[in-house]
Amino acid sequence: MHLPKPLQSLKDSFESLPGIGPKTAERLTFHLLRVPQERLDTFADSVSALKQTKICKICKNVGEDEICEVCADPKRDKEKICVVESPLDVLALEKSGYNGLYHVLHGAINPIAGIGPEELFIEDLLSRIKKWGSTLSGTTPYELDKLEIILATNPDLEGEATAMYIKNKLEKCGSTLIRISRIGRGLPTGGDLEYADETTLKRAMEGRTSA
Amino acid sequence: MHLPKPLQSLKDSFESLPGIGPKTAERLTFHLLRVPQERLDTFADSVSALKQTKICKICKNVGEDEICEVCADPKRDKEKICVVESPLDVLALEKSGYNGLYHVLHGAINPIAGIGPEELFIEDLLSRIKKWGSTLSGTTPYELDKLEIILATNPDLEGEATAMYIKNKLEKCGSTLIRISRIGRGLPTGGDLEYADETTLKRAMEGRTSA
Repeated sequence: MHLPKPLQSLKDSFESLPGIGPKTAERLTFHLLRVPQERLDTFADSVSALKQTKICKICKNVGEDEICEVCADPKRDKEKICVVESPLDVLALEKSGYNGLYHVLHGAINPIAGIGPEELFIEDLLSRIKKWGSTLSGTTPYELDKLEIILATNPDLEGEATAMYIKNKLEKCGSTLIRISRIGRGLPTGGDLEYADETTLKRAMEGRTSA
Repeated sequence: MHLPKPLQSLKDSFESLPGIGPKTAERLTFHLLRVPQERLDTFADSVSALKQTKICKICKNVGEDEICEVCADPKRDKEKICVVESPLDVLALEKSGYNGLYHVLHGAINPIAGIGPEELFIEDLLSRIKKWGSTLSGTTPYELDKLEIILATNPDLEGEATAMYIKNKLEKCGSTLIRISRIGRGLPTGGDLEYADETTLKRAMEGRTSA
């Protein structure tokens, strides 16, 4: 016995999503079968209209306009750029109270998956940083040592490689005055020393601060 | 900072699905952002076309035609009807090798959620059973004691109540000759006696078979 075609086709679509297996896909499909048609239509419209989202010209974050909310906000601390892998990271950092600017790479360097630096918005970041001082000050020279790049790629293999790559590129570009920092690593809040892995503990010791 | 509207609207749709929280909804939405438009369109079409699925006139299972695959199949053992709560249960039983017919109730009696017997396909089951013998034999009387109803609603509060309700109804209808059975309960394959709860163990003891 096979699933009826309309059900099978939706199940396949669900199954192609990350973290959704055949069982969950079935459950979701049969759940939607009991949902009113208008809610199905809303769902369908949101799926096909998804790509109406725009990529911000400056920071490459997703938004509704050419320039995103963050870049357009005059109250933002324009002396900090936080480099992240994905728009989801921006959301997470926003909740943490960070008030600077962002640059979204849309991925991390991953040679195995065939993602090199040219697949990411790294060139855009470099040219953005080159113009950074003059954008802020207009025509008068700007004190570059006030500026800071925070490399907030994920603390995994790909993220570390990407951070390293960007750091090297920036130093080669001669932007030595701009401070480059890496997001702090250590034990997460609520974490347990006993269960932390060696690398995390090593990083936590390295990153200790005065109490 | 808010999510752009197209993203927020899809996120909301995902969040309305069972077992999908805000974090997963975000992850799925951002995943789809990187998927080609044609795949999004396929997904959207499957969602809105879902209700083209038909309910089988006989067994109330979902299908592509008025009469579902199982009911239309002449090779099926037509002397057994297995009563289940949902079409998903049919799929699960099909995999187990069951070769009889089904009757899908589309739910279980749940007074707290406002689901009474009239919300389910119980009346349809009763009238189907009344005609059962004559359907099978044509005009000659049929040996009703060859027929069997297997109540395979879930072994939880609602499922048990539904099974009990149907059993009472059948007995009142005078269909005393038809055998009524309840799906076996006990330890699941691969289960561990040590960790089984009391009720399961009690049922397993009651349902013991000769070795």
